[in-house]
Amino acid sequence: MESLPWPKGQKLVHLDLKGAPPRVEYLHKFVLKHRTMCHLREVAHCVGTLNPHKEDGVKLVMEMLRQVVELHPDLHTLHIGADEVYMLGEGEESKLWLASPGQTVEQLFLIHVAKVAKAIKEAWPQMHIIMWDDMMRGMSQDTLNDSGLIRLVEPMLWDYTPNLDVEKTVSLLEKYCSAGMVDVWAASSFKGSTSVHTCVPNTHRHVENHRQWLKVAASVSATVKLKGIALTGWQRYDHLSVLCELIPVALPSLVTCLQLLTDGQFNADTQRKVTEKLGISSVEVENMERVSAGEFLFPGRTLAHLIVDLNSFLNSEDVRYFEKNMFVRGWFSPYHQHRKMVSPLITMQIHRQASTYLTVLQQKVEAVREEMVHFYPDSTVQEWFEEHVSPVLIPLQRIRDDITVCLTGMESGH
Amino acid sequence: MESLPWPKGQKLVHLDLKGAPPRVEYLHKFVLKHRTMCHLREVAHCVGTLNPHKEDGVKLVMEMLRQVVELHPDLHTLHIGADEVYMLGEGEESKLWLASPGQTVEQLFLIHVAKVAKAIKEAWPQMHIIMWDDMMRGMSQDTLNDSGLIRLVEPMLWDYTPNLDVEKTVSLLEKYCSAGMVDVWAASSFKGSTSVHTCVPNTHRHVENHRQWLKVAASVSATVKLKGIALTGWQRYDHLSVLCELIPVALPSLVTCLQLLTDGQFNADTQRKVTEKLGISSVEVENMERVSAGEFLFPGRTLAHLIVDLNSFLNSEDVRYFEKNMFVRGWFSPYHQHRKMVSPLITMQIHRQASTYLTVLQQKVEAVREEMVHFYPDSTVQEWFEEHVSPVLIPLQRIRDDITVCLTGMESGH
Repeated sequence: MESLPWPKGQKLVHLDLKGAPPRVEYLHKFVLKHRTMCHLREVAHCVGTLNPHKEDGVKLVMEMLRQVVELHPDLHTLHIGADEVYMLGEGEESKLWLASPGQTVEQLFLIHVAKVAKAIKEAWPQMHIIMWDDMMRGMSQDTLNDSGLIRLVEPMLWDYTPNLDVEKTVSLLEKYCSAGMVDVWAASSFKGSTSVHTCVPNTHRHVENHRQWLKVAASVSATVKLKGIALTGWQRYDHLSVLCELIPVALPSLVTCLQLLTDGQFNADTQRKVTEKLGISSVEVENMERVSAGEFLFPGRTLAHLIVDLNSFLNSEDVRYFEKNMFVRGWFSPYHQHRKMVSPLITMQIHRQASTYLTVLQQKVEAVREEMVHFYPDSTVQEWFEEHVSPVLIPLQRIRDDITVCLTGMESGH
Repeated sequence: MESLPWPKGQKLVHLDLKGAPPRVEYLHKFVLKHRTMCHLREVAHCVGTLNPHKEDGVKLVMEMLRQVVELHPDLHTLHIGADEVYMLGEGEESKLWLASPGQTVEQLFLIHVAKVAKAIKEAWPQMHIIMWDDMMRGMSQDTLNDSGLIRLVEPMLWDYTPNLDVEKTVSLLEKYCSAGMVDVWAASSFKGSTSVHTCVPNTHRHVENHRQWLKVAASVSATVKLKGIALTGWQRYDHLSVLCELIPVALPSLVTCLQLLTDGQFNADTQRKVTEKLGISSVEVENMERVSAGEFLFPGRTLAHLIVDLNSFLNSEDVRYFEKNMFVRGWFSPYHQHRKMVSPLITMQIHRQASTYLTVLQQKVEAVREEMVHFYPDSTVQEWFEEHVSPVLIPLQRIRDDITVCLTGMESGH
């Protein structure tokens, strides 16, 4: 295994939001959800993309940035986001603009970002501006040269996958550098990025992602100035998706990834440092067991354990796909249910199984709820349950209740 | 590969119900569903098991047999079933009976069957009586000797699995023979026995089952008189389960299994005979294609083709587990739905996908329905759809309609 330390003197962007560059794009993605702001959307059904033709849009962004800067007195870097600009070019004004010969969606994007970046430099001349690179990945060197962004922004390349393509990523970094964007950043992930509804992170997956980033850092030419890496930790995929991994279940992954970057490698020694630090037996939150009673418990350790347990139950095939099991499919189809014509022997068995699952589920849910309220507001606790538990709970309850109705109907002589 | 012809002079029991021994157990399992007969059940919630202590039970069986015999003038063999007697011994009278020292459920079963068999021999002295063997499999040689069934009944061993244990089956046959039941039967399957909700049989599976039975036939000692094999074809698993494979989709399997038994082996030549006979390109109904236009079409060939097509669509993961997909789990959880707070972009995409599936599904369903009415009464067609299509159709419709409600709610300003 190669041993590639994260380059000396380059920054690890830690999780402390006050230290890390605030990501303002999520602010405007949030703000466009509101009815009073919906006239600023590029298209009505996309709440994440600003109409780039309206001066009020840039004004709104600047007002939000002003509030952010005021709350962070020593701020020297801002992350303006600018990733995943879905539907850009689909608005009526954009369509008109794009009808002019030679005008492209790439230019539409670059003009807007340059406008925001220039306004920032006017307001705070010393401010560094980071932006996500994904909208620029496919752009030609010429387009980037003409973008008006050179020496104005520092691209941050995100790649959260365990099999990150080192060669491709390096050549992307070199492209930005050749186009004049010498200062660049990396973004990995220690939670999130697995699947939108994942509740428990797999440390191994995130370790692999960081190992690949170390290889990238060791492979880029000296002209590229890789300024640091941001370890992203996702709470949800966008403002209207479910909550994904909560921070307590992700602490082992975070600590492991940070240790890996500090050591410049991942081996038995790295793992030992992490497990000793956290007082757990494995870097995988799913496998951790406390070393001994009375040992140090990292904050949220009990909640993490309970979520792992509940999550494993919720994702067992028998429970999540209960209504697709052979007994339900074979003996309690809509045909049987509508006619209340069922085999008592088998439907009673289905009923018993559903009731058992529901009892276990409710016990596990209560245990998680009791811990979760120590860390999260009630509204978040409620949301988490409606997003992760209800999709399993409701079908189980429905089938149990439907069978009760059928069996009661039969007893009364139907 | 061994080549073991079905022993000469031994009967292949064909599917023609008039020729094959009627299975009376299904008559009484049916009859006990009715309210007027439910006092004859062993326990109230099991519609398939007769209370063995009531004389009226035996009278009912004899009355049904009398009707069957009258409808089959030249009948010389009756199959009385007597398999899978769930809950026997659980009724109040049985519990009392079993409380006497030395009395067992095995005896309870044997006494009842002997009573029925003797009544048959009294009514029709020349009648051969077949019964399923499964309740006797675990019985000792002594119990069988004392059963009162010796020289009264001929056990039929069922095994429908492709990996039938030849050695075990042979020793079971030898056990019955040693206990005095020299005349025995085999039962294989050409449809059914895969899974309760299977709609399309896999010929290979049934071929393997028959190949194993050929090996059994070649391995038993000369004292065992294996009188024949019944190729069972299941319409449902019990009186209150869904319809399984219909006969048109199972004809290639039936013809293949019969050809295999006739040839005493299964090879390229067997397959050629079958495909030529049926005018199809494969013995697997899922792969069959008509050889050329204008060729012979076996009855139900079009229906078989359409069911295969619909079944494959219904069982594709994306369709059957639609509400478990990442977009629904991530962006349209009960939390989002109840609050009508959804990402229009993503829910519109879910809506579009559900609608597309529904359109395709409805087209395929209509095509099947149009063909099916030529072969089945409307009530069967209706039942088949409510059992196999509705479990997929209803969730797709539900999610489409729920999203419509949410999006409409958002437009009107909620």
